[in-house]
Amino acid sequence: MELSGIIGYPITPFNADTQGVDLEKLGNVIDILLEANVNAIAALGSAGEAAYLSELEWQQVAEFTVQYVAGKVPVVIGIAELTTQQAIKYAQYAYEIGADVIMLSPFSYYKLSEEEIFAHYDAVSNATPLPIMVYNNPATCGVDMSPEFMLKMIDSIKNASMIKESSGDIQRMHKIHKLSAGKVPFYNGCNHLALEALNAGAQGWCTAAPCLIGDQPKQLFDAIKAGNNAQAKTLFYQQYEFLEYIVVSGLAASVKCGLEIKGHRVGGPRKPLLPLSSDAKNTLETLLSELG
Amino acid sequence: MELSGIIGYPITPFNADTQGVDLEKLGNVIDILLEANVNAIAALGSAGEAAYLSELEWQQVAEFTVQYVAGKVPVVIGIAELTTQQAIKYAQYAYEIGADVIMLSPFSYYKLSEEEIFAHYDAVSNATPLPIMVYNNPATCGVDMSPEFMLKMIDSIKNASMIKESSGDIQRMHKIHKLSAGKVPFYNGCNHLALEALNAGAQGWCTAAPCLIGDQPKQLFDAIKAGNNAQAKTLFYQQYEFLEYIVVSGLAASVKCGLEIKGHRVGGPRKPLLPLSSDAKNTLETLLSELG
Amino acid sequence: MELSGIIGYPITPFNADTQGVDLEKLGNVIDILLEANVNAIAALGSAGEAAYLSELEWQQVAEFTVQYVAGKVPVVIGIAELTTQQAIKYAQYAYEIGADVIMLSPFSYYKLSEEEIFAHYDAVSNATPLPIMVYNNPATCGVDMSPEFMLKMIDSIKNASMIKESSGDIQRMHKIHKLSAGKVPFYNGCNHLALEALNAGAQGWCTAAPCLIGDQPKQLFDAIKAGNNAQAKTLFYQQYEFLEYIVVSGLAASVKCGLEIKGHRVGGPRKPLLPLSSDAKNTLETLLSELG
Amino acid sequence: MELSGIIGYPITPFNADTQGVDLEKLGNVIDILLEANVNAIAALGSAGEAAYLSELEWQQVAEFTVQYVAGKVPVVIGIAELTTQQAIKYAQYAYEIGADVIMLSPFSYYKLSEEEIFAHYDAVSNATPLPIMVYNNPATCGVDMSPEFMLKMIDSIKNASMIKESSGDIQRMHKIHKLSAGKVPFYNGCNHLALEALNAGAQGWCTAAPCLIGDQPKQLFDAIKAGNNAQAKTLFYQQYEFLEYIVVSGLAASVKCGLEIKGHRVGGPRKPLLPLSSDAKNTLETLLSELG
Repeated sequence: MELSGIIGYPITPFNADTQGVDLEKLGNVIDILLEANVNAIAALGSAGEAAYLSELEWQQVAEFTVQYVAGKVPVVIGIAELTTQQAIKYAQYAYEIGADVIMLSPFSYYKLSEEEIFAHYDAVSNATPLPIMVYNNPATCGVDMSPEFMLKMIDSIKNASMIKESSGDIQRMHKIHKLSAGKVPFYNGCNHLALEALNAGAQGWCTAAPCLIGDQPKQLFDAIKAGNNAQAKTLFYQQYEFLEYIVVSGLAASVKCGLEIKGHRVGGPRKPLLPLSSDAKNTLETLLSELG
Repeated sequence: MELSGIIGYPITPFNADTQGVDLEKLGNVIDILLEANVNAIAALGSAGEAAYLSELEWQQVAEFTVQYVAGKVPVVIGIAELTTQQAIKYAQYAYEIGADVIMLSPFSYYKLSEEEIFAHYDAVSNATPLPIMVYNNPATCGVDMSPEFMLKMIDSIKNASMIKESSGDIQRMHKIHKLSAGKVPFYNGCNHLALEALNAGAQGWCTAAPCLIGDQPKQLFDAIKAGNNAQAKTLFYQQYEFLEYIVVSGLAASVKCGLEIKGHRVGGPRKPLLPLSSDAKNTLETLLSELG
Repeated sequence: MELSGIIGYPITPFNADTQGVDLEKLGNVIDILLEANVNAIAALGSAGEAAYLSELEWQQVAEFTVQYVAGKVPVVIGIAELTTQQAIKYAQYAYEIGADVIMLSPFSYYKLSEEEIFAHYDAVSNATPLPIMVYNNPATCGVDMSPEFMLKMIDSIKNASMIKESSGDIQRMHKIHKLSAGKVPFYNGCNHLALEALNAGAQGWCTAAPCLIGDQPKQLFDAIKAGNNAQAKTLFYQQYEFLEYIVVSGLAASVKCGLEIKGHRVGGPRKPLLPLSSDAKNTLETLLSELG
Repeated sequence: MELSGIIGYPITPFNADTQGVDLEKLGNVIDILLEANVNAIAALGSAGEAAYLSELEWQQVAEFTVQYVAGKVPVVIGIAELTTQQAIKYAQYAYEIGADVIMLSPFSYYKLSEEEIFAHYDAVSNATPLPIMVYNNPATCGVDMSPEFMLKMIDSIKNASMIKESSGDIQRMHKIHKLSAGKVPFYNGCNHLALEALNAGAQGWCTAAPCLIGDQPKQLFDAIKAGNNAQAKTLFYQQYEFLEYIVVSGLAASVKCGLEIKGHRVGGPRKPLLPLSSDAKNTLETLLSELG
């Protein structure tokens, strides 16, 4: 299982009345991603508000996604749990329902040491045969994993085989590429770093942007892979302000707002997360209208 | 309900075999704190590994603590939940079982805006009549609340009435004291800042240290309140290295290690947290032996 | 030579017409400090805009200060030069004119390594017999020296014998006190940390505040040394907003503005530094009027 | 005057005996750069240790460089002075000797406000007709200028017309490109960000690397401009570790060490800067041997 290209992240729609997960609407969002020609679907990431779901909801979203995608593209399942026991439970569940890849991040309350993170990944790896994407996102997870440490985990932990880098620092990608002699696939998780990441050797781009701007991220990916530099630069700068805006406004809230703008009633994020303010919604509307 | 003095934090013991919460041992730890003359007991804080407990375990610890303390001193219950709904549920439970104060922190995955934090606290305040201690601990919670913002919440939110400051920056306490004209009680949550915090006007010190060094924190508190400066300085520097060490080594892991050293079989922290290494245990043993 | 108490920092007045140093006005400022009962005078610190003076001006200020103070209190001369050669030249000059102490900081363009800083201090120490105050002020100097490193320099470099800590982090002072068993004198260089620093064992307070508020810093120092805790707290909070304001507004510009408010025509700071805006001047005027 | 391509930075050789500037050796270094096909020469930057030179030395280096280059390529003169008066003096001198561009940075002791920086640039602009490159290098200068602020200066200050960005954050370049609609030329000042900067639209790369690796930086620049993506990536990763190493080891010290390795007796950096340790020299030697 080696992922390449655009890995699309659905948000998790909530029912306006019950505030529960709305699986039918989730199906619509997955359809939007598939129509945008994504190369994989990653459920239960940051954009999917996984951290805010109950265990039952989490399982429903995971199972529904695998069944709905139905093998058209690989399905990645995000796991960001505070305890190793719960991460193992979720990983085993992901395996049972037929997911293809686990994306595992060291979400923390107490800052974890490298020894603790290593043991956490190792325990999850021993619990299922699924390949593990090591996911570094210090802004949400509270700990920052260096390229050297992540590569050490990939060397030593059976199923750990790829890296998603969301720190926003392109030098991390240089290090991963150089230290692994280009052999460890890595993926860009910082939307407004896409041009640099792909030029530096990222094998894919993990993004919720196709929920709102269709195959434009895919076009950018293709332009770079085709060596079409001028077009890549043009495409990137067209999307740049939008890509930055959905990150700084909070991915879940802004992508949900964008879907509402486009007529999909997916609801707002779960409290304490708030929907975009009306000013922010107006800005997003303008940015989206400029992108067709 | 106005807290003053030493607010003691029990760890949450786990059974070595089942890995479940060991309430009998929790009773022993509470006894240790009461013998150390603490002025209140605060369950389910960072030291209590609340973030790593299941809902059922959380409720058991909360209920047991209130019943075991049995009104000898006030009981504070910590709440650090990712969703507002869960925070409300826990707050109502704390009220039902007879707790005295809620200590509420804005634990976050997505970084919360001030508007989101305000709405979170307001919703919890509207759900119970219990007084709320606004708890700022950016290192564990992922967001940092300014003195100005916390005072605004205390002004505007019915039950929000006191502040626990754990950022480690003494200037925050200066601001709280000065901006509130000394009227909003605040508490020190950074062990190795105790001397400064109490001299700057903190009404109490939230600490798990009495689990290991008895009434020595209380002696320091009393010396400062008595205006006995030279003694306060001596007492503080006696405890200083120990106080810093349990913070930098992880409170839960190091206090549990210290209790084991003292013969209490309270188990290690929950994974992915690891027990102290044998080197760190030796250091702690030396520090404890110097403190009698 | 062991300094204790309040070490007063004069600003360097410039002539409104020529923009040159105005030594007569400097005499007036020194008088103000002596009337405020400072225990030492420190020329050519940050407040004295030493970094902005030509070599000739620097020498004039140094020589004038020593002659004008005339042994009433010790004179400290600040040295913050980019090259070791120039630092040595200034140190030798300070010795020749009869200064008592050199305050030496590692002002940097390239960030200096500990090895480079050590060699810099060692070279200056070998060039004169004057005692050296090791001065850590990362905000202006661009490098940050740890307590451990500064104590190592004091152990190993002949004339290095005391520390001025201006990082604003009280934990540094805890470390200095504890690691040196209270034997290395240290001084507070962060005005709004004065209460904490003195309670933690600082032997003195380096400050330009007496230029504007007379002996009130000295009263605070005396209250703490007398063990009069309640009075110390009251005095500190009276001065607190003023002390913070002159730091955040830029010491040289704000102290010069305050002197103008009080009727001393000392001019503004040297460009590119700008005088306080009229709004900031109004704020300072209010703060000063509250302090008598 | 619009610069494009590789802007080469000579170091400033010092005579091993006198420690003075060695102009003959400087000529050799300029020859090396010209042979490396640089598109411009920039004297008195960080690599040139300008901050450590006396006024006389600074003038000698500036004048010699202009005369020696003799119009073969444009000459940029770096100015990083603490006072506006001295910056003006140097700018006028640069104009008199026939330099083409001034590279001006806000080197600071007190952190400068935007108002102070603006006035500083404006005053220099009014003193000469030379075009000004606004140079942001927070690591050495102590202040950080945002893209928005630098563009405002370029809009409002007569001779300010281009930007050198050395913060290392590629997002700054995205902003400059986007906010100026691609009309304000910007240059990369962070060696190991070269691939990204040039792909993002940088018009040139300011670097001392050609002192050691000849026209390899130029080859990278040409590959990107030719849209030859695969070759650009290969060239970048060949140079990457070297480019990072000379930055983290200190540009002046490491480039001088590299020149010594290659047989040019240019001496070490000026104290307190130290030459590379023998371990670091060995590492550099290995990196250079890999680059031919």
